[in-house]
Amino acid sequence: MSQTEIGFKPASRLNNVRKSAIRRIIDAARPGSINLGIGEPDFQTPGIIRNEACRVINDEKNGYTMNAGLTQLRHLIAEYHSEGTGRTYGAENVCVTTGVEEALFATVMSVAGPGDEVMLADPGFLAYPTQVSITGATARYYRMPASGRFGFDPASFDRAVSDRTRLVFVTSPSNPTGRVMSRGNLEHIARRLEGSGAIVISDEIYRELYFEERPASIAEYYPDTVIVSGLSKMMSMTGWRIGWAVGPEEVIRSITVMHQYATSCASTISQKAAIPAFSPEGRRATEEMRVELARRGGVMARAIERELDLPYVLGEGAFYIMLDISRFGRSESVAMALLEDLVITAPGDAFGSESEGYLRLSFSIEPALIEEGIRRVASGLSKLARV
Amino acid sequence: MSQTEIGFKPASRLNNVRKSAIRRIIDAARPGSINLGIGEPDFQTPGIIRNEACRVINDEKNGYTMNAGLTQLRHLIAEYHSEGTGRTYGAENVCVTTGVEEALFATVMSVAGPGDEVMLADPGFLAYPTQVSITGATARYYRMPASGRFGFDPASFDRAVSDRTRLVFVTSPSNPTGRVMSRGNLEHIARRLEGSGAIVISDEIYRELYFEERPASIAEYYPDTVIVSGLSKMMSMTGWRIGWAVGPEEVIRSITVMHQYATSCASTISQKAAIPAFSPEGRRATEEMRVELARRGGVMARAIERELDLPYVLGEGAFYIMLDISRFGRSESVAMALLEDLVITAPGDAFGSESEGYLRLSFSIEPALIEEGIRRVASGLSKLARV
Repeated sequence: MSQTEIGFKPASRLNNVRKSAIRRIIDAARPGSINLGIGEPDFQTPGIIRNEACRVINDEKNGYTMNAGLTQLRHLIAEYHSEGTGRTYGAENVCVTTGVEEALFATVMSVAGPGDEVMLADPGFLAYPTQVSITGATARYYRMPASGRFGFDPASFDRAVSDRTRLVFVTSPSNPTGRVMSRGNLEHIARRLEGSGAIVISDEIYRELYFEERPASIAEYYPDTVIVSGLSKMMSMTGWRIGWAVGPEEVIRSITVMHQYATSCASTISQKAAIPAFSPEGRRATEEMRVELARRGGVMARAIERELDLPYVLGEGAFYIMLDISRFGRSESVAMALLEDLVITAPGDAFGSESEGYLRLSFSIEPALIEEGIRRVASGLSKLARV
Repeated sequence: MSQTEIGFKPASRLNNVRKSAIRRIIDAARPGSINLGIGEPDFQTPGIIRNEACRVINDEKNGYTMNAGLTQLRHLIAEYHSEGTGRTYGAENVCVTTGVEEALFATVMSVAGPGDEVMLADPGFLAYPTQVSITGATARYYRMPASGRFGFDPASFDRAVSDRTRLVFVTSPSNPTGRVMSRGNLEHIARRLEGSGAIVISDEIYRELYFEERPASIAEYYPDTVIVSGLSKMMSMTGWRIGWAVGPEEVIRSITVMHQYATSCASTISQKAAIPAFSPEGRRATEEMRVELARRGGVMARAIERELDLPYVLGEGAFYIMLDISRFGRSESVAMALLEDLVITAPGDAFGSESEGYLRLSFSIEPALIEEGIRRVASGLSKLARV
């Protein structure tokens, strides 16, 4: 069957979707490669989560939950984000989803459509533009300039706002750069959007993974904000697929409808196992991972300084370093060439035009692998001609 | 926050989505009610699945899988549907999703859009019309007439086909009626659609739950078929959220893209735990549940004949009986009135116009509860005036 071409033409909403550069790199990687392109922590999920999962698997029936998720879990998520923003969220402000990816998707699908503009940071997470394109809305970019270490640029932001702005993505800490938005940045965005009717989608999936001070949430400044987050990064639970959207009840109602028709509900087992993540013991587990990741960031930065004479940006959170390889050519070609030295990196090009000329290097793996990975990057680059 | 109305207007794709009648009934139900409106088996998930889940939770890291799902699982699913259709599917013909709901959603979103027509059975599963509406396509109905015990009506099917037909839903066994499409029905559909370029979506989530002869798949007759199915019903794993789409490689590629941007991947733990479902022991567990559900269908039919003097339809599969309550009024009013006697039923109206005047009664629960549930239906109906 796989040999027969049926001449299938997908629905036009998929017209602009292409295989990502990262996917091309990973598909071309050889066994034995060190993966500095990875987007997930390598820690085992904490025991408190694993034990609860096995308990409910054996002791309880695990049928469908309500579409919006288990009430107890939604209360805990509401409480967590109330603490984190100074707002008062209740269970009715929460929809639990299949990872943060579905929270993003359901939000974009609920809010944006043809004729609308959606503002995205350049560089930013590579799924955003495709999700926007699927809705038929138009992406408008605000630059986080490489020349300013990928920091927020108020003038660029203001230029991208129009009277068709319907949705604005704010991601802090950023993927790919790890840069955190200051309170001043967030206030600027809130003031600029005030009265516009635009919804802000605040992607806070990396919020607990910071190096010094916990990042602020734009929800503190802008009420029409949908926070999307989840346990993937902060509890090392990527494969468990627990994310959520938190925001004004009217918007969450629409998001819950989209979620209902997209997936019905998130895994019941994962939802039940998520509950202890909000206990003191769960919070301590996150804190331990946070401290360890901050340490690994230092390991990678020192390795880069030792092995490579290249500029780099280490942000204030997440687990990525942006390495400037522009003198060796385009990022995808460089990443492809480095595969020869058995090291996988993420080309900056995949995240936007501002990050072209950079590689995103992840320090979520073991320190020994980080060190060896950077040596392989150095070895690979030494074979490339400078442009 | 929940008190503040922000005047949010959802994207227009959600304009026609309303709370379902079933949701209204469930929201109005009181504690202590017997649920004959349920859409899931009440069996504990088989031990072979639960043991494997606990093993991988503790012994393995459970990060993201490939978007399309674990290769080993996709091979097993491909083999299972190759056996079930006589076609040769490989892993490249499979995308694993967050339950069959996401398989349906990703397929509809990949295939249909504004200007297209999508053919649906009346009555049919209540999520279909909303999923179609979200894509902007137009639903066209073919009748499975109540007057013909909800059997397939070739003339009605033929009338609904047009040169804009892009996607055709075929569900056998049917939810809500449990009726199975005969091989003759399937051949008729395949012949009628031949050369049209339409894709058939064959919802086979109830296929393993039959009473006498295993239902055939339309994929046997029509090559441009996407089979959607999953483990929810056949392994009593609704809360685990494992479904899949199987079909021509080009279509599966688009479905996988939609799935990637909607949810990234299905729960890794559920995917790994799904693997033993395809072992001889897993297949035996399904067979045991099948036999028990068939027995419970008999229990419900006998209880209806004993307690109620009303026509009913017991199909050839799934776990539903359609009870004709038309002499007592509209199905939603009757279902609402029955809540007084602490029994939840699903009004036929929720599934289409053909099933108005019927209640869908589920016999997936314990026989003693089935018996008591039917007594409560009888008691409730005895208080209603005939119309």
